[in-house]
Amino acid sequence: MTSSLADRVLSGDARAIARAISLIEDDDPGGVDLIRAVFAQTGRAFLVGVTGPPGAGKSTLVDRMVGETRRAGSTVGVIAVDPTSPFTGGAVLGDRLRMQSHAGDEGVFIRSMATRGQLGGVARATADAALVLDASGRDIVVIETVGVGQDEVEIVRTADVSIVTLVPGTGDDVQALKAGIMEIADIFVVNKADRDGADRLVSSVESNLSLHAYGAGDWRPPVIKTVATTGDGVPALMDAIARFREDARANEGTRRRSRAESRLREIVSERLMARLERSVGPGNLAALVERVAARQLDPYTASDQLLKKVFAD
Amino acid sequence: MTSSLADRVLSGDARAIARAISLIEDDDPGGVDLIRAVFAQTGRAFLVGVTGPPGAGKSTLVDRMVGETRRAGSTVGVIAVDPTSPFTGGAVLGDRLRMQSHAGDEGVFIRSMATRGQLGGVARATADAALVLDASGRDIVVIETVGVGQDEVEIVRTADVSIVTLVPGTGDDVQALKAGIMEIADIFVVNKADRDGADRLVSSVESNLSLHAYGAGDWRPPVIKTVATTGDGVPALMDAIARFREDARANEGTRRRSRAESRLREIVSERLMARLERSVGPGNLAALVERVAARQLDPYTASDQLLKKVFAD
Repeated sequence: MTSSLADRVLSGDARAIARAISLIEDDDPGGVDLIRAVFAQTGRAFLVGVTGPPGAGKSTLVDRMVGETRRAGSTVGVIAVDPTSPFTGGAVLGDRLRMQSHAGDEGVFIRSMATRGQLGGVARATADAALVLDASGRDIVVIETVGVGQDEVEIVRTADVSIVTLVPGTGDDVQALKAGIMEIADIFVVNKADRDGADRLVSSVESNLSLHAYGAGDWRPPVIKTVATTGDGVPALMDAIARFREDARANEGTRRRSRAESRLREIVSERLMARLERSVGPGNLAALVERVAARQLDPYTASDQLLKKVFAD
Repeated sequence: MTSSLADRVLSGDARAIARAISLIEDDDPGGVDLIRAVFAQTGRAFLVGVTGPPGAGKSTLVDRMVGETRRAGSTVGVIAVDPTSPFTGGAVLGDRLRMQSHAGDEGVFIRSMATRGQLGGVARATADAALVLDASGRDIVVIETVGVGQDEVEIVRTADVSIVTLVPGTGDDVQALKAGIMEIADIFVVNKADRDGADRLVSSVESNLSLHAYGAGDWRPPVIKTVATTGDGVPALMDAIARFREDARANEGTRRRSRAESRLREIVSERLMARLERSVGPGNLAALVERVAARQLDPYTASDQLLKKVFAD
């Protein structure tokens, strides 16, 4: 069953890809089996991460990037990590709307993933979904996330190039830059660059960058102005991505190792917790929680007691 | 040493509080000892979480809330969780600027915490810092975070009441609402309410809320308009907080248990990972990472091998 799903994913079958990503999203053991089966065939796609605050126009920008990539003859997969509220259920609707501009083009696969509120698992699930698209033979995989929090940083770190999208006129440009995002950006995009304040935002990013000492061979993140709604600036962005890709070949080994390490840590951490829950048993855990809630026991001492139980098995 | 620090924290000494929070921020074992020592004296402060996107005017709003709280005769501690880039080092400067409006008032303690890019530990460190302020006898502890990501959600969940601050005119109100934030808000604030689009944003939040079926006894999050720069609407916000606090007394046991459980899980997860690293040893970990990076071994199988080593100890 799963091996045939893996074969179909490897052959590029869109339904099989969708099914595989659903398994991953649902945390189904079949998802893990699939990754094991296709993993050796991955590592060929180039992963492009796009992040930035809500309202920065990321979806429109990604649509334009998809168009440019297709014109250049490459196939694309898009994973939009979309923390959907139970009130909206926006992911499916959003996919339908977004697919319309590429309707009938088998070279484009777009899929939203809900984060379902679970902590930690999001980055792993996104990375696995990217592996599926990679295994399916997509040349370019775009990972788009909403937000500027630590979780988005972790997601974007799984990409080969990280694009941070900013937008003028949100009142406090500096805060947007402070939010842990300067370190992860390989390329900055100032979108909606036809708005007031675009040049000021570009200068503000540039002056932040100038505080950083770049060596002769170091990549200095360019700041690209785009108007995604018209497509202005998008070819310049694609050029910057291509230059970064060329530049990064020298460090590819290091990047792959650091990515492999963080994936391994995530998986191990999730499994350790699952094992803890099994070996402690729900009753014992509830009793400890009760004592912490009543302030009879501090959480650190309670944690010591839990760990003793796990390792006494 | 630590017991005297604990005594000084319990007596409300501002320097001791600052020192204690630094220990926690630096992940110093003394921080854990301190929490163990003061934990039984905590649980009396009311924790107010304030979150929202960059540029929503949260700092100004929190300053106004501090002013109102002081006027009502209560003492306040503020923890501003501030994901500072290494380029800016904004936290210390920000504290100085913010303390100026409450200079000489011993009833106000303001402290920024950098997140230092570590995953997961931020929510725990923030919760511990809040415990220190609680133990020190502060009546109200405000936890302010920048951002709308999963990490901020986790931080705000440690509070007794969660306030989500929105701002009109960021172009895409709906995205801001989708970002996992609807579920955590006990109170919505539309700040900068003198701007165009404020009423539209209020309606948009209200219409989202109306999709949710609130029962007769359920708390329905109110939407409060404020202009933090002038103070308009801040008394109404304080009233809403007081009403929520009154309303929440019935569920206090459940809230305390769920908070105790998530704290316990965080601490245990961090410790399990630390133990794994010690028992596997850096050489073995590096060798496995190398094989995953070379696609000779998938990360799930590598993780199985690591876990076997830990539990074979």
